[in-house]
Amino acid sequence: MSDQPSYAKIRYAKRKVDEDAVAHAILDQGLVAHVGFVAEGRPMVIPMAYARDGNRLYIHGASKTRIVARNDGLPMCLTVTHVDGLVVARSGFNSSVNYRSCVVHGTARWVEDRAERDHALWLVTDHLLPGRNGEVRAARPQEEKATGVLALEIEAMTVKVRSGPPVDEPEDLALDLWSGVLPVTVALGRGVPDGHTPPTMAEPASLGLARRKFSA
Amino acid sequence: MSDQPSYAKIRYAKRKVDEDAVAHAILDQGLVAHVGFVAEGRPMVIPMAYARDGNRLYIHGASKTRIVARNDGLPMCLTVTHVDGLVVARSGFNSSVNYRSCVVHGTARWVEDRAERDHALWLVTDHLLPGRNGEVRAARPQEEKATGVLALEIEAMTVKVRSGPPVDEPEDLALDLWSGVLPVTVALGRGVPDGHTPPTMAEPASLGLARRKFSA
Repeated sequence: MSDQPSYAKIRYAKRKVDEDAVAHAILDQGLVAHVGFVAEGRPMVIPMAYARDGNRLYIHGASKTRIVARNDGLPMCLTVTHVDGLVVARSGFNSSVNYRSCVVHGTARWVEDRAERDHALWLVTDHLLPGRNGEVRAARPQEEKATGVLALEIEAMTVKVRSGPPVDEPEDLALDLWSGVLPVTVALGRGVPDGHTPPTMAEPASLGLARRKFSA
Repeated sequence: MSDQPSYAKIRYAKRKVDEDAVAHAILDQGLVAHVGFVAEGRPMVIPMAYARDGNRLYIHGASKTRIVARNDGLPMCLTVTHVDGLVVARSGFNSSVNYRSCVVHGTARWVEDRAERDHALWLVTDHLLPGRNGEVRAARPQEEKATGVLALEIEAMTVKVRSGPPVDEPEDLALDLWSGVLPVTVALGRGVPDGHTPPTMAEPASLGLARRKFSA
């Protein structure tokens, strides 16, 4: 995938505003991010929930966890990828993947300020379940203490988009071979209530909003 | 997500064989991996196609690309994550994500041997489109030269699995709130033929095999 021509990158190099809009859309539609950091000289890549606040990203974790506790002031990379289809070419070489990815580089900052931390946790919940914060009971002090938050100002960003049909060699087009795209979609289903939810209770609005936001 | 209890990790710590089976299933069902490495002291996370061959992983890229060319002998991290559902709890604190992830640590090895490189490229194509290698025309020497391959022996692996309903505080269960799981699934659709494929031509078998393999 990384070896695919980055049409977006090339085009947006001259159109920063558009690149930001595309990048933010990719980030805002992601269910999870893959967060990279360096631990004892080795690269680590961990899936994490996250949220975007303008040009800043927030991730959270138990206060004790290595990612949150040990990365204050250190460089981080946060990548969100959407796979849109398998590109089925007439050769292995031209086979590819249609995808949209945004690679963000920044420096992790441990969020000390309680108001900013509460704001970040609100955003992380709202990212996955829009409006859910207004449905659940309020957070408790010990819960806020147990959660650590890192902020990441977006210092650099690379958008890559591969879309459309395969690009076969001209001499391959005459081959008696099927070529095209196998679409990949993400779907959010109906909510499955837990054992303590009355079967007659309607789904909260946040589930429908999440379906609309993430179902491709 | 990383702050979720890792049931799998705890349980499988005593049952290595099971952990390997679960880890291999997570790796084999992934569309893309997020590959982490260190470049000029900074973490980088890039989405890449990949394939597993026993206890070894292969990734490929244009011979010139930084990932392939500059990482021979360096530590790498390869993470595959499946998001299975949004865990909608009665509090933001207990809200979570159902997921399966496998984090692999290894050392990148530039594949010099042509037979191993061809084998790796065959596997990467077969990973996304099972059987496709038998459908397309043979690779050409200049295509093989243009492609670089890295091998990664799995030196360490961490499996994390979060599944099931929310775990709410006992005192929250009486609240008049919907709680449960919003399922997330990946679906591969019908193939969309390109402009050079006769509309009457049937989908090749590899597309159906990919649908069965990746549609959750």
